[in-house]
Amino acid sequence: MSLLVTGSIGIDTVKTPFGVMEDCLGGSAIYFSMAASFFTPVRFLGVVGEDCPFDLHEVFMGRDVDLTGLESRAGSKTFRWRGSYEGSMNEANTDGVELNVLAEAPPSMPGGYKDSEFVFLANTAPALQMQLLDSLDSPRLSVADTMNLWIDTARDDLLALLKKINGLALNEGEARILTGNDNLVAAGKAILKLGPSFVVIKKGEHGTLLLTDKNETFALPAYPTDNVKDPTGAGDSFAGGMMGYLANCGEFGLTALKQAIAAGTCVASLAIEDFSLNSIAATNEKKLDSRLTEFRNMLAFE
Amino acid sequence: MSLLVTGSIGIDTVKTPFGVMEDCLGGSAIYFSMAASFFTPVRFLGVVGEDCPFDLHEVFMGRDVDLTGLESRAGSKTFRWRGSYEGSMNEANTDGVELNVLAEAPPSMPGGYKDSEFVFLANTAPALQMQLLDSLDSPRLSVADTMNLWIDTARDDLLALLKKINGLALNEGEARILTGNDNLVAAGKAILKLGPSFVVIKKGEHGTLLLTDKNETFALPAYPTDNVKDPTGAGDSFAGGMMGYLANCGEFGLTALKQAIAAGTCVASLAIEDFSLNSIAATNEKKLDSRLTEFRNMLAFE
Repeated sequence: MSLLVTGSIGIDTVKTPFGVMEDCLGGSAIYFSMAASFFTPVRFLGVVGEDCPFDLHEVFMGRDVDLTGLESRAGSKTFRWRGSYEGSMNEANTDGVELNVLAEAPPSMPGGYKDSEFVFLANTAPALQMQLLDSLDSPRLSVADTMNLWIDTARDDLLALLKKINGLALNEGEARILTGNDNLVAAGKAILKLGPSFVVIKKGEHGTLLLTDKNETFALPAYPTDNVKDPTGAGDSFAGGMMGYLANCGEFGLTALKQAIAAGTCVASLAIEDFSLNSIAATNEKKLDSRLTEFRNMLAFE
Repeated sequence: MSLLVTGSIGIDTVKTPFGVMEDCLGGSAIYFSMAASFFTPVRFLGVVGEDCPFDLHEVFMGRDVDLTGLESRAGSKTFRWRGSYEGSMNEANTDGVELNVLAEAPPSMPGGYKDSEFVFLANTAPALQMQLLDSLDSPRLSVADTMNLWIDTARDDLLALLKKINGLALNEGEARILTGNDNLVAAGKAILKLGPSFVVIKKGEHGTLLLTDKNETFALPAYPTDNVKDPTGAGDSFAGGMMGYLANCGEFGLTALKQAIAAGTCVASLAIEDFSLNSIAATNEKKLDSRLTEFRNMLAFE
């Protein structure tokens, strides 16, 4: 089933206790597409400036990622992010952001993308997410990510978007800020009342919580690992694995959602083992299958 | 299989966003015994002062809890704890402690307890935990809890204890402080090097992490709930359910440990639904079985 993602392409500089990586490839759409491509063909929609040093056709070579929607905009500069991690590395400190091309008009949607049935709107201004969603014919499953910035500065746009999408994926701090509920189950229930039929709360090293409007709940730990070099992109890799799995299933009932969350968890656990895209790009299906089997065996207790 | 617990009996004053409960029954041995008694007979070892307003024979009436080891010490005062919870209530603020009788000699071990095969040394000074352990004939499984205070002030005693016990149960902050490792898997591995054959890291609302010296790992989320009125005793109820389950099995291999951790998780989820012992004392086997079934069904994803 076709899976469309729209999100950022970034030039990242990341510092963790394990080192510094300057001007490396990052961005939500990049991590997402790399992760999702293990499960399903991906349609990529994103924009870079003319300064972008990366050849994304090379980056995604051998993977079923359609780059028709990749725009290189003359006269613009690529999005840049500088971040660092300390201690348990469960939260990124943003040390600098240059929105650049992300503050301009969104990339235009290729005609061939309009029939996309599964859609992931990675974190960006909710008005833009809405505009992109509106330009699609009739998606069956639309899921969005968001962040504190939009909850604080574009709340009305976000609330309007929540009425239009099927699912929201966000981290635990964002769920608390969006709803004013400290208890995550209560926060999840409050988000469901805002529109989506399911919400996925990402807790980093503590795993994931799913709630649906059918009063279903699912909690899954993260894959336990001490092999964490750079958590950048963990949430987007998780979302890519989850959405890729769902698009491949062609449905999003509770069982599919549970399996998809487990798949996302395992892809994310591989993505954080090295800086930038290094680890996830070096992963193959066999390695991912083996991680999934190990994770399922670990969780089984009967 | 006989299960011995030694720990505190407290007069608690607890404040949460849902109210204040003054001078109510608390203490690690109390919560532990209540939880463990769903699974196995419990031998209780603890001491109160002459001011203790609670009749523990009445509290444990109808449960298989042997109170031979309950000492009421003339001229002494009962341990008191005042605590409060805010926000997600994942961590207690200690607003006041009066050690009282806990700062004196430990209760003496009844002769009939010395053949106990399963032992839980709830949180107290590690030198006392060692003394109590040494007074037993030949326990098959000994597990201890600890806290920041002892890690900071009685580290050598704690390290000596760790060489003598089979398992350590502690919370995530304590695991980080004890080892200097922020990553919990790394912290768990470091603890195993200090002696125990398994370590259970309690993460409150985020569940539990188990590591064993056979390189086995298990992670389990907490039971997802927005029905949390008072988290006091959650960790001790968890330990009681876990140890009670293991004592009932009569073994502590990986499968038994996994099931025991799930059992402890469910008992703890019931304990936090009301202040003090109110909820766990009102729980019956049917309610606990139903919680366990619901939890297993939630976790299943194949």
